[in-house]
Amino acid sequence: MTSAGGAVVVPGPNGVPFLKGHGTENDFILLPDPDSQLDLTPERVRRLCDRRAGLGADGVIRIVPDADGGAGFFMDYRNADGSLAEMCGNGARVFARYLVAAGWVEPGEFDFATRGGLRTARVAADGDVTIGMGPVRLGVRSSTRVSGLAMDGVAVDVGNPHLACVTDHDIDGLDLTRAPEYDTTVFPAGVNVEFIEGLDAGAGRDQIRLRVHERGSGETRSCGTGTVAAAAAYLDLSGRRDGEVTVGVPGGQVVVRIADGQATLTGPAIIVASGRLDPALWG
Amino acid sequence: MTSAGGAVVVPGPNGVPFLKGHGTENDFILLPDPDSQLDLTPERVRRLCDRRAGLGADGVIRIVPDADGGAGFFMDYRNADGSLAEMCGNGARVFARYLVAAGWVEPGEFDFATRGGLRTARVAADGDVTIGMGPVRLGVRSSTRVSGLAMDGVAVDVGNPHLACVTDHDIDGLDLTRAPEYDTTVFPAGVNVEFIEGLDAGAGRDQIRLRVHERGSGETRSCGTGTVAAAAAYLDLSGRRDGEVTVGVPGGQVVVRIADGQATLTGPAIIVASGRLDPALWG
Repeated sequence: MTSAGGAVVVPGPNGVPFLKGHGTENDFILLPDPDSQLDLTPERVRRLCDRRAGLGADGVIRIVPDADGGAGFFMDYRNADGSLAEMCGNGARVFARYLVAAGWVEPGEFDFATRGGLRTARVAADGDVTIGMGPVRLGVRSSTRVSGLAMDGVAVDVGNPHLACVTDHDIDGLDLTRAPEYDTTVFPAGVNVEFIEGLDAGAGRDQIRLRVHERGSGETRSCGTGTVAAAAAYLDLSGRRDGEVTVGVPGGQVVVRIADGQATLTGPAIIVASGRLDPALWG
Repeated sequence: MTSAGGAVVVPGPNGVPFLKGHGTENDFILLPDPDSQLDLTPERVRRLCDRRAGLGADGVIRIVPDADGGAGFFMDYRNADGSLAEMCGNGARVFARYLVAAGWVEPGEFDFATRGGLRTARVAADGDVTIGMGPVRLGVRSSTRVSGLAMDGVAVDVGNPHLACVTDHDIDGLDLTRAPEYDTTVFPAGVNVEFIEGLDAGAGRDQIRLRVHERGSGETRSCGTGTVAAAAAYLDLSGRRDGEVTVGVPGGQVVVRIADGQATLTGPAIIVASGRLDPALWG
């Protein structure tokens, strides 16, 4: 414990440093680890992400130098259940925001490493961050059933499987507390399902809003790859492959750009607090 | 932003200091405010307690000197929705734990002020904290209906209204996602309902476990006054007013002692992290 000069911070300076932040309300605990010394076990991830007994988050991002590759830093992303994940579009924005805010990299464009390969980040002066999301591939037509309604959609591969359904139904009225039904022959490993409403933004602007049911997580406030899949499906409806789509999700707004089969995702990255973990929590 | 000597903490040293902690998984953001300078608006409380866009908690406890009364410190408790509350038994343990950990008061027994009046805390060397919960008063018999089952119980006043139901039904099987029905003539302002299972602890020890549906919040992991109400109702079943009851709640275990119509609540108080809020969150 410390109480120096009116300071009021407990525990002391030896706890593991952390930050908490979010991208369109997809929230993360950042663990800057410049010397690659943190032993981030699944049990520790689960304890950190517990929303009552821990700090609470959708996932943990350990920030370490990229020992093997050509990038400066590696985004070591873990889901709240302790499992490894290749990449997380919303988390990558917060990761990139931290690197610049901490002075670890210069503002502008830079590469970083993920389990899914090298990615590119661009941190703008206005606070928004753009992440290269890699290839987006349209697949077969398929359909889902949710809230007693049948809806058509299209399979989209953004590194993970999506079924993106542009619909005239009221998406706010859908009950997503139960998983949407889908064709297991098309999606043998499960699927993320997007319900998409096209908006009349005028002047040729493409704008949509969506709700998403994530495989294994249920409905979420935002899903980075889901916004990319939704934009691709929306453009496809008017026979386009390339374009820029503004996407509203329950947790905020992002912009998806698709060109030559490659997508970028631009959106906010907010750091809300920083500090030290109590050794009792880290264990 | 700071990056001094390998330090990795963003934002800088001027953010509002905070701690996060919990008592039996009822979790709180502590704001130590030794100079009574923080303007804790309802909007700020809601932003802090938001579990995705903020830090996330069931409530905020501002810790300030007691300007008016005879106690050293005042527990300025706010619910997550920004409303004021008189007192919170689980929060009081974390509040008392901080005062001792920060060196603001000596370990042992001390008074503190709440909107519900002066209370007493005792911080033990083993980490448990005991809070004086004030008078507990048994009222009329009443009943509830939940999951299609009718159950009898007794009204208990612990500063707030409870309906404590000792039952032979399997409490784990109850559906508490819907509020239990109750007699509005007995509880015109609503009621917290406890579902209590007596355990055979042997050797004359009194032990129960319970689930609680809190008025306005739904089922919670723990409710301090609910554990007191449940212990009083359980003792009453064997014709006793005084006694010591070990109470298991979904978030952990506490001990309630009742003597001469006054209750104390003893349980863990855990601080998991501390740091500074980003000015963007505090606003």
